[in-house]
Amino acid sequence: MALTLEEIAQRFGGEIVGDATVRVGGLAPLDQAQPHQLAFLANPKYLAQVEATRAGAVLIAPADLEKLSSHEGRNFIVTPNPYAYFARVAQMFIDLAAPALPHGVHPSAVVDPSAQVAKTAVIGPHVVIEAGAIVDEGARLDANVFVGRGTTIGEGSHLYPNVTVYHGCKIGPRAIVHAGAVIGSDGFGFAPDFTGAGDARTGTWVKIPQVGGVTIAADVEIGANTTIDRGAMADTVIEECVKIDNLVQIGHNCRIGAYTVIAGCAGIAGSTTIGKHCMIGGAVGIAGHVTLGDYVIVTAKSGVSKSLPKAGIYTSAFPAVEHAEWNKSAALMRNLDKLRERIKALEAAVEKRDGAA
Amino acid sequence: MALTLEEIAQRFGGEIVGDATVRVGGLAPLDQAQPHQLAFLANPKYLAQVEATRAGAVLIAPADLEKLSSHEGRNFIVTPNPYAYFARVAQMFIDLAAPALPHGVHPSAVVDPSAQVAKTAVIGPHVVIEAGAIVDEGARLDANVFVGRGTTIGEGSHLYPNVTVYHGCKIGPRAIVHAGAVIGSDGFGFAPDFTGAGDARTGTWVKIPQVGGVTIAADVEIGANTTIDRGAMADTVIEECVKIDNLVQIGHNCRIGAYTVIAGCAGIAGSTTIGKHCMIGGAVGIAGHVTLGDYVIVTAKSGVSKSLPKAGIYTSAFPAVEHAEWNKSAALMRNLDKLRERIKALEAAVEKRDGAA
Amino acid sequence: MALTLEEIAQRFGGEIVGDATVRVGGLAPLDQAQPHQLAFLANPKYLAQVEATRAGAVLIAPADLEKLSSHEGRNFIVTPNPYAYFARVAQMFIDLAAPALPHGVHPSAVVDPSAQVAKTAVIGPHVVIEAGAIVDEGARLDANVFVGRGTTIGEGSHLYPNVTVYHGCKIGPRAIVHAGAVIGSDGFGFAPDFTGAGDARTGTWVKIPQVGGVTIAADVEIGANTTIDRGAMADTVIEECVKIDNLVQIGHNCRIGAYTVIAGCAGIAGSTTIGKHCMIGGAVGIAGHVTLGDYVIVTAKSGVSKSLPKAGIYTSAFPAVEHAEWNKSAALMRNLDKLRERIKALEAAVEKRDGAA
Repeated sequence: MALTLEEIAQRFGGEIVGDATVRVGGLAPLDQAQPHQLAFLANPKYLAQVEATRAGAVLIAPADLEKLSSHEGRNFIVTPNPYAYFARVAQMFIDLAAPALPHGVHPSAVVDPSAQVAKTAVIGPHVVIEAGAIVDEGARLDANVFVGRGTTIGEGSHLYPNVTVYHGCKIGPRAIVHAGAVIGSDGFGFAPDFTGAGDARTGTWVKIPQVGGVTIAADVEIGANTTIDRGAMADTVIEECVKIDNLVQIGHNCRIGAYTVIAGCAGIAGSTTIGKHCMIGGAVGIAGHVTLGDYVIVTAKSGVSKSLPKAGIYTSAFPAVEHAEWNKSAALMRNLDKLRERIKALEAAVEKRDGAA
Repeated sequence: MALTLEEIAQRFGGEIVGDATVRVGGLAPLDQAQPHQLAFLANPKYLAQVEATRAGAVLIAPADLEKLSSHEGRNFIVTPNPYAYFARVAQMFIDLAAPALPHGVHPSAVVDPSAQVAKTAVIGPHVVIEAGAIVDEGARLDANVFVGRGTTIGEGSHLYPNVTVYHGCKIGPRAIVHAGAVIGSDGFGFAPDFTGAGDARTGTWVKIPQVGGVTIAADVEIGANTTIDRGAMADTVIEECVKIDNLVQIGHNCRIGAYTVIAGCAGIAGSTTIGKHCMIGGAVGIAGHVTLGDYVIVTAKSGVSKSLPKAGIYTSAFPAVEHAEWNKSAALMRNLDKLRERIKALEAAVEKRDGAA
Repeated sequence: MALTLEEIAQRFGGEIVGDATVRVGGLAPLDQAQPHQLAFLANPKYLAQVEATRAGAVLIAPADLEKLSSHEGRNFIVTPNPYAYFARVAQMFIDLAAPALPHGVHPSAVVDPSAQVAKTAVIGPHVVIEAGAIVDEGARLDANVFVGRGTTIGEGSHLYPNVTVYHGCKIGPRAIVHAGAVIGSDGFGFAPDFTGAGDARTGTWVKIPQVGGVTIAADVEIGANTTIDRGAMADTVIEECVKIDNLVQIGHNCRIGAYTVIAGCAGIAGSTTIGKHCMIGGAVGIAGHVTLGDYVIVTAKSGVSKSLPKAGIYTSAFPAVEHAEWNKSAALMRNLDKLRERIKALEAAVEKRDGAA
């Protein structure tokens, strides 16, 4: 499973400097790589490691290559983005080494006769696929995955164990959905139907039926135990190449723009639209019915309660400091109006005196 | 599956104005509805749409009906709460259209012989029901649901796929539990049994057995991947008609009062009591061993560390602003005591001068 | 299933004061205990209840025993930590009362022929164990648990229903993993491979393969629906006796030090190291690539963005107050620079006047 630099460059691009016939069979960090391995320089501050590495070849950016004292006896694949190149080559070696899974449906799976499962799909033990669902070529459904009525799983998608996809959802090609994620659960919507107040209040919450679905475009990754609710009338939409971390909540009728990344424990309330190429930090909370423009960055732990149409970085989180110090500042903050009153009084006193003078 | 307005009013109440024999077979927004559909006016600002709609009939409040220039040639069901009425009728049409599920136990389910499963219950593939559990009439357990020893699932409840209910829990009638929710996991309780300090500390955490259960009253909805811990000695209690969103954590021995709603990503630590008709916003955190009165509203992202016995709206969250602006304010906030000292010094200086004058 | 005080003391230590032949068959609070039950005094403020209790014996600390007016006719097991002692004895009685589970593999489980399952392990219905996995003696895997390729489950561990452990992970002895937890999902890592800006941006996120695993040491407890990501190159590591609550996210390549406890809804971003004996409060967020020293306490809802090498208590959370009051303070906080300007102007005015005088 070793490839020549030439074979790698044919597949992933880049220009070879040195011996194109050298064979490598895996990747390793510069300081640990052996002659049969490929290393990469993602950060110029490690340039000295390139001079010292035993790697068979190094992925390097053109500007960094020029900084080397000599290329003598070394081999390179020159590429503008060695880190992304590394990721692609590493994935290829992992795929080559992975045991081939037998196509077909595990005998313990329960597949409705009206569901369409492609021949090259891999359906694991105890998977359940309901009526009218479609599982495309090369899709892989691991143990205990549930696919509801009429739902579509795109080509080459991989659903890890215990994933639940409700009825009437569409998952695009090459999706990765990690274990325990839930797609298509009911949005949180209830009509209050109460009369009276206080102890005399009677009535109930009436559930608003959630009859939209979830539409997920191509190349989306969804983290473990993340939840994406179905829409009330129209669909909740996740655009192409969105990457969502673990334990994220996305409410009904949200739209998440292409290439946006959302870190773990974030929560996005219903009917909110997030633009393309946004970065939502960990544990960020975003209110419902707001709109974030393209290229908006919200830093970790911040809360968004209004629309942020302009690209930029937004924050509302404090870093933890020593408890006693924090308590002092917090107490002062709660009494800011008193400080302001004292300033006002001082201004009046100084004004009066200046006037008197 | 179309009904006359008269049939609908017989079932859900309301007064018909216009032709009671008109048939409708579904719902749609005012501006999209066709003659065979029912529309609704929930917000008076859309009154003009009622004049223009092609809907077969409109759900409307009495006060809004009076504002119309004419009822001529139009049909209405007049009800004090058109939005709740809409929700109920929409649910009915969904139920009428849903494929009938065959009663009984799927052959791949594993049901202990001592468990009691009612005849009209629907037990899906790979469900596991342990000894002594009871599943009441009309309950529906979807694929891979687990019901532990001695647990009761109430009449007409619906547990979506991959839900886990531990042993010794009671779920009341008409519950909806979304996929991946966990009910009855151990509360987080450990007795410290350490001696020594710093590097010399030895000992361990000793687990406190959690022998209470979880009791969930009627008409509760629980969101996807939400977790509700069992009590240590007594039960964790969720009262009737509580609605809980996705990814919410409820600690051991909490009591959540009737009709309270809890939005996604909220966390409630152990032994906390929340009153009736409260509204807990998204990502709110509530400390353990505190009590919230009835009708308490906590806004999204806020933290509650003390009891809030009085009805009202409570907040401790900041909205995100531009990062640079935030950092400036945050730095000043950390130095509020210095601002206060400067004010003090000014006061002394002015005082002294005034005294001197 | 009743034991004499002597039998209990032989097993768990402590000194008997009174009749060592008294038999108890369970535990109860001081004010409810009957003569066949054992009670405990964990807090001296309940000393009066010891005088009045009907319990067959009381677990008590030496210092509290001395405060009693008389031991006459009462029985005690004297131990420095009655609460921990209670927890251990309570667990023993629960274990004695629990129905014995039949060893072996449920016929509906799917176990790869190359997996090694110990004879005394209990493998529940619909469990899936992949190639090369090892399940040690006395381990218990409940319904629908998934154990990936080459993963090891330690002796006496208990995985509750619907737990997913990916391939290549190691779970140590006596682990407790609650329902829906996911161990070994991919870390959240993508290399940006974009060119151009704004609407002209093209390219994609390239997934960084996550080839490390998760290593979990002995006596760890992991809460329901908690997620622990696998490492990118090296393993994510959870040291011995770490206790993690529900809905916690632990990113790739984190290391959590021994005896640390992490409360519900906390999130720890990738490559962060937490020391031993730390206490991380509920809903705390900790940034990636930071280090917390031993004995660090972070209070609930706080955010940590920098390393905290020193033991201590750290905070950045505000408690909720009435909404109107909060809004006033928050508005002032956003305008702190204006208050500062006014103070500066006052200082100049006073300075000038003082100079003039």
